[in-house]
Amino acid sequence: MNKLYGRVFLVLITFLFTTVAASAKTEVLPAPNGIRMPEGYKDWRLISSSHRTDNNTLRVILGNDMAIQAARSGQTNPWPDGAILAKLVWKDATHEKWPTAIVPDKFVLAEFMIKDAKKYSATGGWGFARWLGMEQQVYGKDADFVQECYGCHIPVQKNDYVFTRPALLP
Amino acid sequence: MNKLYGRVFLVLITFLFTTVAASAKTEVLPAPNGIRMPEGYKDWRLISSSHRTDNNTLRVILGNDMAIQAARSGQTNPWPDGAILAKLVWKDATHEKWPTAIVPDKFVLAEFMIKDAKKYSATGGWGFARWLGMEQQVYGKDADFVQECYGCHIPVQKNDYVFTRPALLP
Repeated sequence: MNKLYGRVFLVLITFLFTTVAASAKTEVLPAPNGIRMPEGYKDWRLISSSHRTDNNTLRVILGNDMAIQAARSGQTNPWPDGAILAKLVWKDATHEKWPTAIVPDKFVLAEFMIKDAKKYSATGGWGFARWLGMEQQVYGKDADFVQECYGCHIPVQKNDYVFTRPALLP
Repeated sequence: MNKLYGRVFLVLITFLFTTVAASAKTEVLPAPNGIRMPEGYKDWRLISSSHRTDNNTLRVILGNDMAIQAARSGQTNPWPDGAILAKLVWKDATHEKWPTAIVPDKFVLAEFMIKDAKKYSATGGWGFARWLGMEQQVYGKDADFVQECYGCHIPVQKNDYVFTRPALLP
C-alpha cells in the first residue's frame, strides 16, 4: 500500500512540475488595458525600420496581414480597423567587424498599436500595449498607461497617430 | 473588308501594348552568374536590421523559411544549404516629427546570399546577387562581379561569411 502511495505521489509531483514549467515559459500577462499580446507577431511581415539616436535603439516595424495589405496599397491614413503594428526594439551596438555598422544588441521591448476606431476612440482609434525584455514583462501600472503612449503620438495626429511610414519597396 | 482589317489591326495593337506593358512591369533580369531573383522575398520574415553610418543606409535582413528555421534554432555556423538571406537597403533620412529618429527614404537595392556549399564552393558556399533601385536593375557586368561580394565578406569567414547575426527575439 505504501508503494502505491509512493507512485501516486511521484506522478502528482511530476505533473505539477511539468505544468508549472510549461506555464512559466508561455505565460505572458495581458496589458493593464486588457490587450493580449498578438499571437505570432514575430512571423509578421516588414513595414519599416528605424534607428533612434536619442536612446540608442534599433527598431523594426512589422504588420499583421491587414496592416501589410494597407501599407502596400497606400491605405494608411487612416489605417483600417484590424490593422496591427508591432514595433520590436533592440539596444544598438557596433558590429565587431564593421565599425560603422550599427546592429541590434539586447532585446528591449515589443510594443503594439491595434487599430479599432470605435473601441479606442479615446486614444486616436488605437489600442496601445507594450511588453519588456526577453521575459516580456507587461508594461504599465494601470489602464492609464496608454495616456503616455497616446501623448507621445499626438504630434503625428495628421498621419493617423502613426510615426512609421511604410518603407518603399519595388 | 477594310473595316475588318481595321478591327483586326486594332485588336493586334491592343494585344501588343498590353503584353509589352505587362512584361515591362514584371521582367527582372537574372544576375550575370545566372541567379534569378528569389520570388516573394518581400514576404519573408525578419532576421535582423542595421544602420550603416559610412554610407547612410538603413538595412533590413529577411530570410526564407529555411533561413528563419536556422536562425531561430541557432544553426547558423554554417547556415544550411537552401537558406537564403535577403538584404533590403534604403537611404536614411531624419523623421520629420522626431529629429533623432533615422528612417528609410529612397529604396537603394535588394541583395541576396544563397547557401549551397557545393555549388558555390568558390565563394565560401554562397551565391551572391544584387538588383538596384525600384526598377531592380541587375548588378554586375559579368559573372566575376561576385568577387567583389565575396572579397567584402572574407573578414567574417569565421561566421560562415555572414555579417548578420540574427537579432535576439523573446
